[in-house]
Amino acid sequence: MTPSDHHHIVIIGAGFGGLEAARNLAKGDVRITVIDRRNHHLFQPLLYQVATASLATSEIAWPIRSLLSRFENVTTLLGTVTGVNTQAKTVLLDDARAIAYDTLIIATGARHAYFGNDAWEPYAPGLKTLEDATTIRRRILAAFEQAEWEPDAAERRRLLTFAIIGAGPTGVELAGTIAELAHETLRRDFRNIDTREARVVLVEAGPRILAGFTEDLSAYAEGALTRLGVEVRTGKAVSQCGEAGIELGEELLPAATILWAAGVAASPAAEWLGAPADRAGRVLVAPDLTAPGHPDVFVIGDTAHVPTADGKIVPGVAPAAKQEGRYVADTITARLAGKPAPKAFAYRSDGNLATIGKRAAIVDLGWIKLKGRLAWWTWGIAHVYFLIGLRNRLAVAMSWLWIYLTGQRSARLITQADVAKRRPEG
Amino acid sequence: MTPSDHHHIVIIGAGFGGLEAARNLAKGDVRITVIDRRNHHLFQPLLYQVATASLATSEIAWPIRSLLSRFENVTTLLGTVTGVNTQAKTVLLDDARAIAYDTLIIATGARHAYFGNDAWEPYAPGLKTLEDATTIRRRILAAFEQAEWEPDAAERRRLLTFAIIGAGPTGVELAGTIAELAHETLRRDFRNIDTREARVVLVEAGPRILAGFTEDLSAYAEGALTRLGVEVRTGKAVSQCGEAGIELGEELLPAATILWAAGVAASPAAEWLGAPADRAGRVLVAPDLTAPGHPDVFVIGDTAHVPTADGKIVPGVAPAAKQEGRYVADTITARLAGKPAPKAFAYRSDGNLATIGKRAAIVDLGWIKLKGRLAWWTWGIAHVYFLIGLRNRLAVAMSWLWIYLTGQRSARLITQADVAKRRPEG
Repeated sequence: MTPSDHHHIVIIGAGFGGLEAARNLAKGDVRITVIDRRNHHLFQPLLYQVATASLATSEIAWPIRSLLSRFENVTTLLGTVTGVNTQAKTVLLDDARAIAYDTLIIATGARHAYFGNDAWEPYAPGLKTLEDATTIRRRILAAFEQAEWEPDAAERRRLLTFAIIGAGPTGVELAGTIAELAHETLRRDFRNIDTREARVVLVEAGPRILAGFTEDLSAYAEGALTRLGVEVRTGKAVSQCGEAGIELGEELLPAATILWAAGVAASPAAEWLGAPADRAGRVLVAPDLTAPGHPDVFVIGDTAHVPTADGKIVPGVAPAAKQEGRYVADTITARLAGKPAPKAFAYRSDGNLATIGKRAAIVDLGWIKLKGRLAWWTWGIAHVYFLIGLRNRLAVAMSWLWIYLTGQRSARLITQADVAKRRPEG
Repeated sequence: MTPSDHHHIVIIGAGFGGLEAARNLAKGDVRITVIDRRNHHLFQPLLYQVATASLATSEIAWPIRSLLSRFENVTTLLGTVTGVNTQAKTVLLDDARAIAYDTLIIATGARHAYFGNDAWEPYAPGLKTLEDATTIRRRILAAFEQAEWEPDAAERRRLLTFAIIGAGPTGVELAGTIAELAHETLRRDFRNIDTREARVVLVEAGPRILAGFTEDLSAYAEGALTRLGVEVRTGKAVSQCGEAGIELGEELLPAATILWAAGVAASPAAEWLGAPADRAGRVLVAPDLTAPGHPDVFVIGDTAHVPTADGKIVPGVAPAAKQEGRYVADTITARLAGKPAPKAFAYRSDGNLATIGKRAAIVDLGWIKLKGRLAWWTWGIAHVYFLIGLRNRLAVAMSWLWIYLTGQRSARLITQADVAKRRPEG
């Protein structure tokens, strides 16, 4: 262990932002403790592929401890933070331990949110953790299993209807991949049902899907989804989610599987700090990403509300979290060296990517826009490149190649629940 | 669907025996329904590698439906059987459905058993399902995480003690791999503990480990385990398992992680049939593997008690279950063709293999005995060969190569429980 008289930096959360901060700070003469309530860093951009049986859990998750093991001055703590005492400068854990810090970085991310409709959660799970992904995978696969033996035609139709709420990148990726599952992967496996009759309905309250892209690319994506067999319903707000399905105003859409991709809320960091927050719970940070009134507390990633030069907010994507992690590492390093701090944080967009099934994608790099197969290859190579570790890169590339060539998905496992029950757990 | 006037064969259980029977019967002019309460066939011989973070769940499990999809006359049903009505010739499911059969094959396998000490199960999980494996993986990894931050030396020692009860192949494989985890994989990842100080204790009531092998090979295996750092305690019966650890008569061995590899009991098929069973619950089948008094009900695999010519019983291993599956398929095919049935089932041993960590194994093929590295390669190649599907063979081979070269294990995930709690779920 590094002597305890070194400046002690505590980082809460080992997502993209927290990990980047830890790695950049570790070179300095400091002591770092990384606290996370999971033992693994998760490559969230590919989480939907675990949910749709394309990848194994261990292909997109890596032990945090192992990622940081080469830095002797970094310690990892598996624990759940319940609060921060900014007076005493301690982080409080749920087992009553208090970890003292000199500088604190909060990078605790976001959870999916139901905007006042928390009762919908049991019926419409969201996708943020590995468990979320295996839950969704179980529900999708179990719906087909139940439909195979369901004598009632209307109930069979409900079982074979998949409603995805929210047409951002995650909703589009889920819808496209579920359509491929039904139309290709599962096609020959059932005897009493034709899986190609499954309905995949993508519901979006806004006027178009993938609102973060240009209208041109968004329209292309909608066409590609439709060709995969997805019903795209824009301008439709969900008024109810339940056992029977979803309600869109007057209309009831019977659906056994409902997936929530409509929105996220930040972790409770603003409450811990008593700091001002936006409606999604993100801390309204100062230009140097410190929490207002707390110069030794930084907030980054999905937990922070960071305005951009053109009046928008920095999006909740991995490259933004990484840039913020690197920025606060530089700022803290400069402070400890007695040098002037860097200028205010400025987000530099590397581009925007979304994929629709295994053959189409849209890519907007600013200077160039791509769609179709070339975009899909760009998307695929970028994601393999950003995966951590050669082992995972090889494994994911091999999994994709296999799916591409055979249409078969290797991770079609129903686990963790009493799956033989006629109804999935509510 | 094949017309319902075809002879209908129902197979309960899609393990090695049930799957082999289904594949061999599917060539005939029959209708087959395979019922399993899981959607996946599990390659149980490698389950301990999921439990010890070496392989991903999807590398050793494959959807039953997909394995049988090329046979048009085979239907798969995901459901839990609760009984058999041999009068009405129906199989009863937990949702009150009854599936009629003309011929029934019961291949429902075994669960680990505590021989009257069921209260031990929460403290000493066994290894039969994918969930068992992820539970054990979580407990092993969480114990190291807790030890890293435990201030009390005695408690730290308890957290770093792993007791494996039962020194059959599974117990030996678990002990060897946990020792490698502690001594190699995790070595550089912790700051406050030296994982090499972890104690791995293999407890066996009998006089030697791997009693199914010759004394020579068994002694070699014990030496190999000892070199890996495992403490082998033979001739010691466990008298208590609990939160504090295990008791061996007078001696208390404090251990936070206890794994049960000491015995199995058959599924309740004997109760379903009202058939005579041995002490482990296995049905005492007739020489043609039918249940006594039920010529249209076959019982195979770990659920059947089958004597061998030399007065032993057919062991509960995959090759035996497969041979039995093929035998009953041949018998049923002959019956339906009005031909004489094959002679009584005779087990033909293909050999006996066990592995100790990633460098040693023992192999007894009858005509040749191997130990050490050559045996390990034989073991590895045999297991990759018997995996189902090229995809899984490639993936497992790659995972092993990676572990072999780097010592790193890719599936070190703590999932499914509130892992930040100081105590694992009881």
